[in-house]
Amino acid sequence: MLQEHIVKSFDQALEGLRRTIMEMGGLAESQIESAIQAVVRRDTGLAGEVMRLDSRLDEYEDAVDAGAVRLLALRQPVAGDLREIVSALKIAADLERVGDYAANIAKRAMTLNQAPPGLRPITGIPRMARRVQANIKEVLDAYTERDVGRALDAWSCDGEVDDLYNSLFRETLTYMLEDPRNITPCTHLLFIAKNLERIGDHATNIAETIYYLVEGRPIRMSRPKGGLTSFEADPQSRGEEIEE
Amino acid sequence: MLQEHIVKSFDQALEGLRRTIMEMGGLAESQIESAIQAVVRRDTGLAGEVMRLDSRLDEYEDAVDAGAVRLLALRQPVAGDLREIVSALKIAADLERVGDYAANIAKRAMTLNQAPPGLRPITGIPRMARRVQANIKEVLDAYTERDVGRALDAWSCDGEVDDLYNSLFRETLTYMLEDPRNITPCTHLLFIAKNLERIGDHATNIAETIYYLVEGRPIRMSRPKGGLTSFEADPQSRGEEIEE
Repeated sequence: MLQEHIVKSFDQALEGLRRTIMEMGGLAESQIESAIQAVVRRDTGLAGEVMRLDSRLDEYEDAVDAGAVRLLALRQPVAGDLREIVSALKIAADLERVGDYAANIAKRAMTLNQAPPGLRPITGIPRMARRVQANIKEVLDAYTERDVGRALDAWSCDGEVDDLYNSLFRETLTYMLEDPRNITPCTHLLFIAKNLERIGDHATNIAETIYYLVEGRPIRMSRPKGGLTSFEADPQSRGEEIEE
Repeated sequence: MLQEHIVKSFDQALEGLRRTIMEMGGLAESQIESAIQAVVRRDTGLAGEVMRLDSRLDEYEDAVDAGAVRLLALRQPVAGDLREIVSALKIAADLERVGDYAANIAKRAMTLNQAPPGLRPITGIPRMARRVQANIKEVLDAYTERDVGRALDAWSCDGEVDDLYNSLFRETLTYMLEDPRNITPCTHLLFIAKNLERIGDHATNIAETIYYLVEGRPIRMSRPKGGLTSFEADPQSRGEEIEE
């Protein structure tokens, strides 16, 4: 009877950890969306909101860490339960970083909003954001449903994000070359695009963690990579390869 | 007798985990150094070497993960031993990212080596690198010696890294404005500086993990931050705040 109670409350605690990750994921998703909207709609108030909310993701990560360590110490889980806890630690760290990137996009939106409107490469940002957001949504759904197939779908889409980044990088460089007044705002756009690309990397990390969680072993394929870009604007530079 | 044997082999396994982290830290340090040398000395061969060695850091992380999960499952540690294992997982993840940033610096060195030499902002890169490398060295020593004081020293130095980044950012923008031929190589320099700044962030993360490891509770101060920069080159943009 007592044993049953302990098992039940362990399951409840695990379920609580899972729910915290899902809530954290939902907040990370809405932070990305708001940050991108702050760029596209030049909404400084919304950018401020994203920066304010970032500390909530840190709090979520602290809560997951504390909960995970408590469960490890008190329940000494093995096998699937242990993987569940280690995965929660890893996914929370990834989502916290995703939040940092969203907050940095919001900060840059604030700066961009002080420049005159109408910068053309801005249109590439929401396109890239949609792809990254779809990947984040896919891995969070995969986590909820323990669906390795969906995790692998998102995992194999990361190359597309890299390709979008490379094409935006090239395009943005040409605007900088065209008119020196574009240099400062375009530099921020480049970093916004890089932040999105890194959010995509964290979606890939989470997909790998889900694979480990469900399959019980690390993923053994090598990571998807976008193609190399050549700098159209500068024939001397040849390869911008993507970072992991 | 058997109990004693188990305890002894557990201690050996923990010691093995610790040693793996130290070796991994040593490799991460030498990867940063080589990547910066590849930029400064325009050494494409060295850049290739850094990119090749990056997979070793991934292997170290996999080894730490596997070792940590095995210890958690078989030994069901509590208190300090548990913190030791959770900390190893976290530090390995940070060092793996540090390696990714070093590899990205090396990739950009390859591209920069195709541009004509003599770009002035390059001199700011080794200065910033020295500060970041000192912080990484400090936290790795702090880990080896379980020295919270040294960890906090490195932790409180991260603001300096941010300040160096901001000054390099402003300087690089002026070179881009001065001559459009500088735009492409300077963009790479900006990303190299940003990579160094992020390596500094990971040193800060590791310092926080050491605090948790030794003190048994999370650090509760807010993170050190560099000052805001104004864009001298563009009076319309005002704040380049540092990301976490």
